[in-house]
Amino acid sequence: MEETRIVSQIKSKRSFLCVGLDVDLDKIPKFLLKEEDPIFSFNKSIIESTHKYCIAYKLNIAFYEAFGIKGWRSLEKTINYLNENHPEIFTIADAKRGDIGNTSKMYAKSFFEELNFDSITVNPYMGKDSVEPFLEYENKNTIILGLTSNEGSNDLQLRRTSDNYVFMDLIKASKSWVNSKNLMYVVGATKTKYLEEIRNIIPDNFLLIPGIGAQGGNLKEVCKKTINKNVGVIINSSRSIIYASSDEFFSEAAEKEAIVLKNQMEEILIQSKLV
Amino acid sequence: MEETRIVSQIKSKRSFLCVGLDVDLDKIPKFLLKEEDPIFSFNKSIIESTHKYCIAYKLNIAFYEAFGIKGWRSLEKTINYLNENHPEIFTIADAKRGDIGNTSKMYAKSFFEELNFDSITVNPYMGKDSVEPFLEYENKNTIILGLTSNEGSNDLQLRRTSDNYVFMDLIKASKSWVNSKNLMYVVGATKTKYLEEIRNIIPDNFLLIPGIGAQGGNLKEVCKKTINKNVGVIINSSRSIIYASSDEFFSEAAEKEAIVLKNQMEEILIQSKLV
Repeated sequence: MEETRIVSQIKSKRSFLCVGLDVDLDKIPKFLLKEEDPIFSFNKSIIESTHKYCIAYKLNIAFYEAFGIKGWRSLEKTINYLNENHPEIFTIADAKRGDIGNTSKMYAKSFFEELNFDSITVNPYMGKDSVEPFLEYENKNTIILGLTSNEGSNDLQLRRTSDNYVFMDLIKASKSWVNSKNLMYVVGATKTKYLEEIRNIIPDNFLLIPGIGAQGGNLKEVCKKTINKNVGVIINSSRSIIYASSDEFFSEAAEKEAIVLKNQMEEILIQSKLV
Repeated sequence: MEETRIVSQIKSKRSFLCVGLDVDLDKIPKFLLKEEDPIFSFNKSIIESTHKYCIAYKLNIAFYEAFGIKGWRSLEKTINYLNENHPEIFTIADAKRGDIGNTSKMYAKSFFEELNFDSITVNPYMGKDSVEPFLEYENKNTIILGLTSNEGSNDLQLRRTSDNYVFMDLIKASKSWVNSKNLMYVVGATKTKYLEEIRNIIPDNFLLIPGIGAQGGNLKEVCKKTINKNVGVIINSSRSIIYASSDEFFSEAAEKEAIVLKNQMEEILIQSKLV
């Protein structure tokens, strides 16, 4: 189980911050473009300046895949760099994969074996047999989309069912899946009105929460409704950290942003008597 | 619009068959493993022996991604081979992607620009703003998951909503999305009882239908309920064609299987007075 490692990291770093590496060539400092692998160079600098203040890195696979083989190479170099230099840090392949059983098995092989990520985000639209091939890896975590922060969450996730909402029924159903203790759930920070009910349904599982800050979610309010005895919350921040500045001091600016968030989280942990 | 090209191919080849290239190193003929790129060699042989009888190839991205950079290279070689040698054939990236807007945009760039596929399968769990970045490519098709053929389709897609079923509400909603005339829908052949209603909601869009044969779907029955004035149906078959034999005559065996299906389709087209 990854949870122990995550919890002990949270307690020693006094932070539950995840830094999202959604690296866009149009947004990184121009002087990096002359490097052999600008994306990897950028990631390495960001990792070195932020790793003391975060417990996880989330790599948004689309941003690598968009550059084909070259992008896949940057992805491989970044995850290898993390696993070699910061093995304690929890790694998330933000891939939103999911397909029929034998295909999901191949995706699991790709991200858990080939690339050796600790976890992957999975789209649950196809249900139990599309998610279980990921869950079968007992020492990995599978993070399914619960309620996402975007407007389109109204189109399907927030449809009313006879019992509740589509996404809520799904979270309930997922509790009976194999190794469901290793499930984590993506829940958007902007969806505060549903957070308590979600936490009641899954009291022990970790939540991966994007949408704090620029997207409108409030850290304190979100934590009040979701923190459990093992903290149980990972807050992701991508652009506000990694693009804090686009000049030569970008990594210092990123560090500063990460510290601001880490300090807010430390305060919450102290108030919750968790550190 | 791709539809014209697809329809004219269907009429000239008298077939609406799509061959799925879900290429598994454990299942291809052993003698190919000594080739430099066994997956690409296998694909090339299958394409050469089946292209007269099918109108589309569907590449299941998981099976390439599972081998990292090497796999991505086989994928790139295969799609380039198709685009160079058989430009009339409709190509499908079976990727089941989908994420918030700026991330979906990167996936669209990857499959439509970097790899130059004609279409991609997209998972609609995150709703309209996660699908529209694909739809914005006017000369490409976006194929969203409607009702899939696996058992897990009960966990979410077939949940009852106040109006209908989750997947049905979604199909209805999708009609108002940008360029929705370029939408196609994945509908499992095993779900015969829902096919007529689906066709009523989207009379003109193409359906991509897996699950004929081994998985239990009946070709004639499926076609009776879904064929429209432009045919409007693409039937996918993967394993029963590409793994028809695992000896040195594998491509001849695949050809034979493709011809069997093509003949059945021709008969249906004649009976429907579409050729």
